[in-house]
Amino acid sequence: MTVVPFLTLKFESGSQSLYRGLYEGLREAILTGRLAAGVQLPSTRSLAAQFNISRSTVVNAYEQLYAEGYITGKTGAGTFVAATLPEDSLETRQQILPKPKEPAALRENDLAERGKRLLTKTAPVMRLYQNKILSAFQHGVPALDEFPFELWAKLTARRWRNQPRELVGYGDPAGYRPLREAISAYLKAARAVNCQPEQVIVVAGAQQALDLAARVLLNAGDAMWIEDPCYNGARAAFAAAGAKLVGVPVDTEGLKLNEAIKGGEPGKCVYITPSRQFPLGATMSLPRRLALLEWANQAGAWIIEDDYDSEYRYAGRPLAALQGLDKNGRVIYVGTFSKTVFPGLRLGCLVVPPSLVEVFSAARFISDWHSSLVDQAVLTDFIVEGHFARHVRRMRSLYKERQEILVAETKRKLAGLLDVAPAEAGMHLVGWLPEGICDQAAAKRAAAHGVEVTPVSSYRLSKICDNGLLLGFAAFDETQIKDGVRRLAVALN
Amino acid sequence: MTVVPFLTLKFESGSQSLYRGLYEGLREAILTGRLAAGVQLPSTRSLAAQFNISRSTVVNAYEQLYAEGYITGKTGAGTFVAATLPEDSLETRQQILPKPKEPAALRENDLAERGKRLLTKTAPVMRLYQNKILSAFQHGVPALDEFPFELWAKLTARRWRNQPRELVGYGDPAGYRPLREAISAYLKAARAVNCQPEQVIVVAGAQQALDLAARVLLNAGDAMWIEDPCYNGARAAFAAAGAKLVGVPVDTEGLKLNEAIKGGEPGKCVYITPSRQFPLGATMSLPRRLALLEWANQAGAWIIEDDYDSEYRYAGRPLAALQGLDKNGRVIYVGTFSKTVFPGLRLGCLVVPPSLVEVFSAARFISDWHSSLVDQAVLTDFIVEGHFARHVRRMRSLYKERQEILVAETKRKLAGLLDVAPAEAGMHLVGWLPEGICDQAAAKRAAAHGVEVTPVSSYRLSKICDNGLLLGFAAFDETQIKDGVRRLAVALN
Repeated sequence: MTVVPFLTLKFESGSQSLYRGLYEGLREAILTGRLAAGVQLPSTRSLAAQFNISRSTVVNAYEQLYAEGYITGKTGAGTFVAATLPEDSLETRQQILPKPKEPAALRENDLAERGKRLLTKTAPVMRLYQNKILSAFQHGVPALDEFPFELWAKLTARRWRNQPRELVGYGDPAGYRPLREAISAYLKAARAVNCQPEQVIVVAGAQQALDLAARVLLNAGDAMWIEDPCYNGARAAFAAAGAKLVGVPVDTEGLKLNEAIKGGEPGKCVYITPSRQFPLGATMSLPRRLALLEWANQAGAWIIEDDYDSEYRYAGRPLAALQGLDKNGRVIYVGTFSKTVFPGLRLGCLVVPPSLVEVFSAARFISDWHSSLVDQAVLTDFIVEGHFARHVRRMRSLYKERQEILVAETKRKLAGLLDVAPAEAGMHLVGWLPEGICDQAAAKRAAAHGVEVTPVSSYRLSKICDNGLLLGFAAFDETQIKDGVRRLAVALN
Repeated sequence: MTVVPFLTLKFESGSQSLYRGLYEGLREAILTGRLAAGVQLPSTRSLAAQFNISRSTVVNAYEQLYAEGYITGKTGAGTFVAATLPEDSLETRQQILPKPKEPAALRENDLAERGKRLLTKTAPVMRLYQNKILSAFQHGVPALDEFPFELWAKLTARRWRNQPRELVGYGDPAGYRPLREAISAYLKAARAVNCQPEQVIVVAGAQQALDLAARVLLNAGDAMWIEDPCYNGARAAFAAAGAKLVGVPVDTEGLKLNEAIKGGEPGKCVYITPSRQFPLGATMSLPRRLALLEWANQAGAWIIEDDYDSEYRYAGRPLAALQGLDKNGRVIYVGTFSKTVFPGLRLGCLVVPPSLVEVFSAARFISDWHSSLVDQAVLTDFIVEGHFARHVRRMRSLYKERQEILVAETKRKLAGLLDVAPAEAGMHLVGWLPEGICDQAAAKRAAAHGVEVTPVSSYRLSKICDNGLLLGFAAFDETQIKDGVRRLAVALN
């Protein structure tokens, strides 16, 4: 039920009477569906004030409609459009319903080039992510059941209680200042990112960070180096911007820079996941990092570093971000709170060289001005009061445990069908099918058994079959993991 | 203070001892500022686990740092980086601070064309809106003091209490379905917008709606008709997209379509504010509306209708949206909750023809995926449970009253200096200076007296002086209005 503050009616002043005009206007609105079943009408007093007519005129019109069955309700409880309209209106209804708006099919030039690319290159990726029901082994989702929502609710309530006057108006496109400071302190300490609060731009998730970078840095037709395979949400943003995507192979040391250089098509931007290559998991080696930075500086290229889940590292030491090694301000660092807090919050961050702060802020300004200030303030409290660190630590041991269960189960039940090696970090593993078995076909069979495994080939630029499957483990408990592996064994057998 | 979940340290294994390596790594991080003053260090247990070393090693390192004054804290209460570092470190500090990253000035081709446009055309507009302290007569801001924040907090708390599992993961780019339904019902009834819930796309404020439209519909170089004067946030989005902006004059019936047609440069898109021309206030007449729709259909052009504050109408009847008259699906309708709920929420809506739903959803997907789901759910409750309607009605009578006070005060104190006529709708009035007095100069004088009045000329494509000043009245009570008028009189005298 929706309550409306006022009505826009065809209230013909040429009607026999005001009462009749109002009655007809309301009836037409109900019959055409503009006033849908269950909608609450304004009170008689309020409608009278709106049209500057006497209240008794409105009462008369309402009474007539009530008598005829168009509206229901009792004094004091509000007046509503009837769920079932009177029998005798059915025919009328068909007559006076406006011809449904039948927009012509899109014409050749109705959409801009970017619009066309959005339809051909982005919409298919979007559909992959739409209307998903969480089932093992969907990857990229944290353990939402383990998030301290009660605490989050308390922090939120506290912000609202303390007269949040500064949080309800318009804000800075670059983000809520205390959050920029908290993020800067966190990234310096935990990720060895070299940044001042001024360089931090709060964004509505990593996706927005990538999109802003594409808008600021890429012309249609520019070559863009991406890892192959590569996160398809990033690819969709760059493709929509009109970039010419050049896939660069990866090995256990990450992006094979030499092959990219040999390819002869210098990238204006490079998109990489050096801490943990998505989806295969390699960590970019120090020599490759230094070589890439050097190349970017020589070529005047930009490096977009997506540091999407490096908080979750189970062995060895946390790895510093590539950005911290950059001496020439060529790295755009992208972080997200979707994996460490929760995805529905839609907050992430960019760290950009000082000379790019203004242009990125301007890009954010025309995109959507800024993120919800209350959400930004609550996240600040969550970080500054130590809850963030506590939660990440707790999740790290939980995910470690879950990964161990997954590895053990797959060893037991999937030997010879899927080879799943443990990983030092991250929220998913890659399982390898025997040579010659297509991951797309395997994923389809798994889906038929209620298991979601994402084929590695779906992240490749060329759509050739690969033989890897992504298994997310972060969001699933022991029972779900065991059940998932059991089903997967049936599917792959 | 920020608490970090783990540290990334240069923890040289070649050091004399593990303890020494850790001590040096921490000290270097503190001295270089990566671990800033006041940051809380991980507990000894947690750091030991992270590096897989014994806890006593960590305790030793911490004790050494404590003894030397680099860290402070007591057992149980946490360990923090000291606010003041030991005297003897000052010199060291200078030596080991990394050379501050001094990114080269931007090179000629560092930015994309769009990036360059963002710097030249968007950044100046952004600066107009940055770091504002609310003072009379800033326009575009609702009466935030009157918003029922306690109620909003309750609705929020209720959503969090009820295990909001569906609200913390990823969602539909087009918006939270119940909110799309509530908006559709509201727009049909209150604005005579012809739409199904499927056509509603929830956006992060009207600014995002305009930006998405520009991305989907406009190629760089396309002609775009805008009203002159025109809201500069919209202009900035279209300019950044590379549109060739064609200003079309307005009169008391709105956009002068004939002049635009005579201009000979057919617009691919037209941006208009038909319900209440921004900033001058005219309502587009029915004949002009029908002519514009007919022209757009013939020309294959798109009409972007910005319906930014039509909830606030104090006399006469609410006016139907242009979109409701469109029989050919050429109108993109833009609505906002910034004026009716609060700007910091960052929610608005688009209503697009069915054939454009997919491409707009895809544009939203790559932009930032979707808006915070909890915020969307709370807004749904606010609308569906009748609070929205109640608040808008209450604000309408409040703003009516405030406008009357402003008009009366200006008559009394500004006669001959500024001619302020009442308006039937909206949240601001336009006051006219005597012929020949430049509004930019007048606004500057007013600012020097603590009064914010926006010159009409700042919304014009050409920057010639005009003689109008915008006076927002919605956000200010009687005392503030009287005080503002008094100051303005001094400034203009």
